[in-house]
Amino acid sequence: MANTDSVKVRVLSLNCWGIRYLSKQCPQRYAMIGDMLCKEEHDIVLLQEVWSEKDYLSLKKKLACSHPHSHYFKSGVIGSGLAIFSIHRIHDTFLFRYSLNGYPYMAHHGDWFGGKAVGMAVLNIGSLTANVYVTHLHAEYCRDKDSYLPHRVVQAWELQQFIRHTSAGADMVILGGDLNMHPQDLGNRLLRSYTGLQDAYLESAKFDGCEDGMTLIADNPFINKKELCPFEKGIRIDYILFKGSTKTDIYCDYMSTTKGSVPNHPFPYSDHEALTAGLRLETHTQTRSDGQPKMKDSAAGKLAALVDIVTEARTEVKVGLHCAEGMRYTATRTGVMGLALLVLELAIAAVPWLALGTEQPFPRTSFYLLAALCFAILLTTFLLYIFYTMELKALQGAEDQMRLAVGSLQEKLRGFPLAQPHNPSRRPPEGHEPSALTPEE
Amino acid sequence: MANTDSVKVRVLSLNCWGIRYLSKQCPQRYAMIGDMLCKEEHDIVLLQEVWSEKDYLSLKKKLACSHPHSHYFKSGVIGSGLAIFSIHRIHDTFLFRYSLNGYPYMAHHGDWFGGKAVGMAVLNIGSLTANVYVTHLHAEYCRDKDSYLPHRVVQAWELQQFIRHTSAGADMVILGGDLNMHPQDLGNRLLRSYTGLQDAYLESAKFDGCEDGMTLIADNPFINKKELCPFEKGIRIDYILFKGSTKTDIYCDYMSTTKGSVPNHPFPYSDHEALTAGLRLETHTQTRSDGQPKMKDSAAGKLAALVDIVTEARTEVKVGLHCAEGMRYTATRTGVMGLALLVLELAIAAVPWLALGTEQPFPRTSFYLLAALCFAILLTTFLLYIFYTMELKALQGAEDQMRLAVGSLQEKLRGFPLAQPHNPSRRPPEGHEPSALTPEE
Repeated sequence: MANTDSVKVRVLSLNCWGIRYLSKQCPQRYAMIGDMLCKEEHDIVLLQEVWSEKDYLSLKKKLACSHPHSHYFKSGVIGSGLAIFSIHRIHDTFLFRYSLNGYPYMAHHGDWFGGKAVGMAVLNIGSLTANVYVTHLHAEYCRDKDSYLPHRVVQAWELQQFIRHTSAGADMVILGGDLNMHPQDLGNRLLRSYTGLQDAYLESAKFDGCEDGMTLIADNPFINKKELCPFEKGIRIDYILFKGSTKTDIYCDYMSTTKGSVPNHPFPYSDHEALTAGLRLETHTQTRSDGQPKMKDSAAGKLAALVDIVTEARTEVKVGLHCAEGMRYTATRTGVMGLALLVLELAIAAVPWLALGTEQPFPRTSFYLLAALCFAILLTTFLLYIFYTMELKALQGAEDQMRLAVGSLQEKLRGFPLAQPHNPSRRPPEGHEPSALTPEE
Repeated sequence: MANTDSVKVRVLSLNCWGIRYLSKQCPQRYAMIGDMLCKEEHDIVLLQEVWSEKDYLSLKKKLACSHPHSHYFKSGVIGSGLAIFSIHRIHDTFLFRYSLNGYPYMAHHGDWFGGKAVGMAVLNIGSLTANVYVTHLHAEYCRDKDSYLPHRVVQAWELQQFIRHTSAGADMVILGGDLNMHPQDLGNRLLRSYTGLQDAYLESAKFDGCEDGMTLIADNPFINKKELCPFEKGIRIDYILFKGSTKTDIYCDYMSTTKGSVPNHPFPYSDHEALTAGLRLETHTQTRSDGQPKMKDSAAGKLAALVDIVTEARTEVKVGLHCAEGMRYTATRTGVMGLALLVLELAIAAVPWLALGTEQPFPRTSFYLLAALCFAILLTTFLLYIFYTMELKALQGAEDQMRLAVGSLQEKLRGFPLAQPHNPSRRPPEGHEPSALTPEE
């Protein structure tokens, strides 16, 4: 091993709960958040639910000295709510919008309008390149009967794809955000297993904060305790994840969360707790070669686990596909009924018109009201049909990618060489390959 | 320089014009395309406008022996139309949907329903990793007054971002597709300058095909010559682009296009010409160090050109922003007028109802028709408002990213070191920096 060089990075992640006029004490809390960030001078600040650009701009003004570099990610109707503040210069940003994100007609849940996405910023910390990601996944409104689960699993799938494919050139990767998933939830396992990201809470040498690292706790005055049920004390759904590269080792020296209140203030920063992680990077001037055999030993086990997780995710996406197909079918049937009703009405109205002189059997008012109803049904079901078709395409797309991934992982697992000669002997097509985990395509 | 190792890759790109029941001779052309692909055995086949999944599946069946690996990218309402067939195993795929893609109410143009995107596939060719991209950008319906130009520029911006950020780990990058841009169009310059991708037509040692490499030609019987005007002979809008890495050099040995007809067939494969490029990769077992000083010499010039191009793109996006704001304003105003009309109507109807006994001044039929009209106006303008807000957010997001990119490029250009010490001296915020090219933010 060559000589090492150590760099320290302090990261904060906070869901700000910044719905103007709806979130409690919103302006006061933003003022508190601004003061805290100004004083604490974290290297990287990852904020979620900064729904109003005005709030972002006032934070930017306040943090002009402590965090001269920042970016606000715009998306959807309202925005993505994602913002990043940094001490280090941001060289490049990129936004990936999730293909699925709830339903526009579930306006009271509001997720669709937020245009959920993952924002990426490329920073240089010393001589190292850091890829920093901030995201906010679809909320879980009812754990027992979570109709958004397939959407969240696809979001986790796309998140891991995005991080994996965009971080090849980075010396360190940091992801912060409100994942709306418990530590052992499918999407979380998918994300961590595929990307190799480590959970700061689990890896931290020192921890000071809520029990079990919870970030949505019953002690927070903004929390409705009934909504947490059956997790009376709280849940952990906000995370700071990290990983190094072949050039760098990364460690979490300490981690802390707020504990439902802020000293000398009447209320906390948000309904979520703020997370702070102290990361330490050790750079090797030479690429490591030690430890590789040990890594290879556990690689097979990790691959097998990953195959299981992706298969589980695929099942969940199939459930979503089934639901979306059902919904589209219902929309189509309702639309056809609306059309039939319209045709029937016109037929009844046409009878006296054809047999001149006969009195109109329809009261005029009812006629127009019924016609208006038919048109409303037709328009609504048409829009729903379009929407469900898009949902289906996105789910099918994710399912296809997962099938391909499982096939590729299984091939790796079988120990077959991945590299092929330029003119390979022809193989049977994918569908013909024996595959224990994907019997039906 | 170390010993080299040479690998040859043949790539085909074709816009299949596969609109079922609308495109002329669609099934016959697919049969011809399938026969040709089966016979030619290109390493990588990149298809666009395969709008029907059924057509993809029948091609897949036909090419099961010649191209055992394939992927179809699903997106939008109809699909993305993008498909890839490969001799080499596809290990991973990823899809990026462009944030802007025309307007849903421009149904006769259809682009919005296609869910335009860029598809990526990760292949192993020998011991090398190839990132292969296939895309299809928004069509240009009127070059003089191209209302989709800002959308296409944002698509080109997102395309270069996607390729740049996802290709860091690749030994070779290949992009094929219908970019709907002439060689010197803004989006094309943006894409090539930022990513360093080279145009196979320009780099090819040998070329056999249409004059000036044109891919949409007057001699093609499916082409309406009037639509090509003022480019009587045709235009070049389909491309195969490529680049190597620090580990590999890549050369284009030959390139060819079809010439508006296929020998022994009554009509060509499509309204676009098919492109074939013969690429040759030379691998170095050691990373090159020669040639670097020469590259540095031209780096400043390239950076300056890039700043100009991004600034031009930013201007184009601003024009788009201005238009979208105007459209949203019009939608809002029309909505308010619809509401005012409804209120007025209700007020007039309420007068006799309040002054009991007075006769209704309104014929009932007109009353209901007018009310229905008001509701239709309100609903339409509401949907349009939502849509234009999303368009604005996407345009603003791209503009923000471009501003950041210009700043970052200018800093590089000034020769300031990019790498900062861990505790940098505080700088003034971005907005305060003097900037010759971005006087107004």
